[in-house]
Amino acid sequence: MEKIKPRTLSGFMELLPAAQEQMERIMQTLRETYALYGFYPLDTPVLEASEVLLAKGGGETEKQIYRFQKGDTDLSMRFDLTVPLAKYVALNYGQLTFPFRRYQIGKVYRGERAQRGRFREFYQADIDIIGDGQLDIINEAEIPSIIYKTFSRLGLKRFKIRINNRKVLNGFFAMLGLSDKASDVMRTIDKLEKIGPDKVREILTEDCGATSEQADEILKFITIEGGTQGILEALKGYEGKNETLDQGISELTTVATYMEGFGVPADHFEIDLTIARGLDYYTGTVYETTMLDHPEIGSICSGGRYDNLAEYYTDKKLPGVGISIGLTRLFFVLQDKDYLNQNPPASPADVMILPMTDEVGPAIELATRLRDNGIRVQLHCEKKKFKAKITYADKLAIPYVIFMGEDEIKNNVVALKELATGEQTNTGFDEALARIRDGLAARAAGTVILDR
Amino acid sequence: MEKIKPRTLSGFMELLPAAQEQMERIMQTLRETYALYGFYPLDTPVLEASEVLLAKGGGETEKQIYRFQKGDTDLSMRFDLTVPLAKYVALNYGQLTFPFRRYQIGKVYRGERAQRGRFREFYQADIDIIGDGQLDIINEAEIPSIIYKTFSRLGLKRFKIRINNRKVLNGFFAMLGLSDKASDVMRTIDKLEKIGPDKVREILTEDCGATSEQADEILKFITIEGGTQGILEALKGYEGKNETLDQGISELTTVATYMEGFGVPADHFEIDLTIARGLDYYTGTVYETTMLDHPEIGSICSGGRYDNLAEYYTDKKLPGVGISIGLTRLFFVLQDKDYLNQNPPASPADVMILPMTDEVGPAIELATRLRDNGIRVQLHCEKKKFKAKITYADKLAIPYVIFMGEDEIKNNVVALKELATGEQTNTGFDEALARIRDGLAARAAGTVILDR
Repeated sequence: MEKIKPRTLSGFMELLPAAQEQMERIMQTLRETYALYGFYPLDTPVLEASEVLLAKGGGETEKQIYRFQKGDTDLSMRFDLTVPLAKYVALNYGQLTFPFRRYQIGKVYRGERAQRGRFREFYQADIDIIGDGQLDIINEAEIPSIIYKTFSRLGLKRFKIRINNRKVLNGFFAMLGLSDKASDVMRTIDKLEKIGPDKVREILTEDCGATSEQADEILKFITIEGGTQGILEALKGYEGKNETLDQGISELTTVATYMEGFGVPADHFEIDLTIARGLDYYTGTVYETTMLDHPEIGSICSGGRYDNLAEYYTDKKLPGVGISIGLTRLFFVLQDKDYLNQNPPASPADVMILPMTDEVGPAIELATRLRDNGIRVQLHCEKKKFKAKITYADKLAIPYVIFMGEDEIKNNVVALKELATGEQTNTGFDEALARIRDGLAARAAGTVILDR
Repeated sequence: MEKIKPRTLSGFMELLPAAQEQMERIMQTLRETYALYGFYPLDTPVLEASEVLLAKGGGETEKQIYRFQKGDTDLSMRFDLTVPLAKYVALNYGQLTFPFRRYQIGKVYRGERAQRGRFREFYQADIDIIGDGQLDIINEAEIPSIIYKTFSRLGLKRFKIRINNRKVLNGFFAMLGLSDKASDVMRTIDKLEKIGPDKVREILTEDCGATSEQADEILKFITIEGGTQGILEALKGYEGKNETLDQGISELTTVATYMEGFGVPADHFEIDLTIARGLDYYTGTVYETTMLDHPEIGSICSGGRYDNLAEYYTDKKLPGVGISIGLTRLFFVLQDKDYLNQNPPASPADVMILPMTDEVGPAIELATRLRDNGIRVQLHCEKKKFKAKITYADKLAIPYVIFMGEDEIKNNVVALKELATGEQTNTGFDEALARIRDGLAARAAGTVILDR
């Protein structure tokens, strides 16, 4: 038969087994951490009617959409998890209870130009809290706590959550008489870290229509230093001049005040007045998260507060706050920068049982008994040489092997060998189980990320 | 602004939050159970190059494929998890260690005619064990153990795993001189339960080209009764007449012999010689799983042994054995037939903290402390009436509420109320935590399926 050459599409991540096991562990940590904060899991279709998914229309995104016709239906694959959430909340409004807290980990699709570290199919891991008409500021203060807990539980240490508030920026621009240019100015200052203050001043005056004095004011404002307390102190000097600015300062202060109570250490959090986030729909607190040793990869978890989640579908005012982790890209970065913990290595089983006799009944019973006790077991009954079977266990990084020979069966003994140390014990079942459990507990103590 | 009417495509399951939480629990049980048997998790793209995905070509399936052009590329959405597995194994052959055991839970797409209980996007939960050149029969004997453990852990009680062996059927047909009609005969007897013996005889003689004597022989054979032991005993009478038949009888006997050792109770397992499974590529043991009280919904977990997983991509002989659960359809059935355990009801949080003062700092600190202890907590800081907040907890089925008033803050007391009983205790943190943990342990004891 003529063969088709197997291949995986470019821009589509497909991991080898051990790496996939690490990815799985990351996802499980996200699920468990998000659940700690009282979020419902949610799952929505990958395919939606195009007129629903593209309700907002236009823009750069639309060109990237995987869109096609099937029968009479114009279909599109989702390009994020926010639009499907908006649809879901608008559609099920009457059956939901607000504030509605949900997380969703799912694949999204964007036909971007393929390049290293860019994916066309990638996981996003989102959480959002949606209010009905209003949503308290405490929800905005809670988000950094979720970010901190998530990355800490994964094992990441050197990262910082940076926040700002859109009302602070908008209010400040209004105070300067630059309201109608706010979007352009915001996009420009967002680039400060990348292009430097001189280039920012140039763009502000030449492209955004700011005067030289306004540009100076802006640069002075966004580069206020002094840490969280120092910045909040300096912002007080701007109070009383613009209502939006005042509200923004008040919100920023509230969020910062509760960081400690929410368990976020002071050195993992900062106010950064240059952060604007590209998207126009953010209206309050905005978040970015950077790896201190790899600022070049940009934010690994971002989001913010918005006022109208579902304005394309409903008149209901549905304010919310949410963040998103680009999981596939994050995993790529962790692999690429050698952050994944290889000790202990990922393994699909805790124990391999190796029958040494033709009668495999006792080996099967032992496997069943160990599995009933929560131990992950493989039986190796293939017709292969002894050495090949040990090599198999080695390659899969299975930590323990149990040999079942005639003597072991006759004497009802478990011959348990730890491959890493070569140490073998011949004991009863309970002792062997205890030894396995102790070993596994030590292995499980490690995190999936190793941040040296 | 003109609104777009939000909708979800017909044939695409989208669950309300509490139901989604149950679905999530089912998936987590599958992941944990499959892991007990030493399977790697695997994840492959939803989109594949059409020439790769449709390498087998033709057939009824191809019409159902979601296939489209994006730029220069002819793309298709996967319609099962077996073809992507075949591609994966062929592509990564040199980097895999065999036998390769993997599970995959993922969405697949088939543009079938929409009808109640039929889905166009649905989850499959597959496990497969792939050998390199050969694969021992013990792997086929292990599969019913996985099926039994999976459904038992979900809480299903009244189900039966039915097995047969294709070699038994093929060998028997060869013995009768019907080898060239084996496929047609197999498809016909597979329908015995549905259409009855008279109709089967009619199709065998009129459409399959069997003589009346051959039809009698076939009907006599496939309706052998007497339970597992009785059937195996009767099959001995057929030994020595055809090599394939002999091998099939030997394999069936081996698989049946080890059921007890693998922990499958005798009343959850039976040999059924009418089971053929539609797919042509099965070559050994085949499996079906039926709910005793709902035979009409068909098999809820099926699969079998095959000889060539990846013949369209490689010359390597890759025999395997696998099963698949149609998870979306199963969930629909469980909902429809009222099998989902509503006691305790699904809930996104264990505790809701209700601050009764303007200063919410102590409530936040308590939330953080509980979360650090693994308790799922929601803080309710919205500006709403007390009663509305209790209603919120009720609707979300959150079992515990903690009130944080001035007295509680001053005296450092946790006022913990269990909503179901109305019982309130005012204690220190440790005692409150212990009470919550005891309550949650009792709730967690229940399974997601309630089979009365």
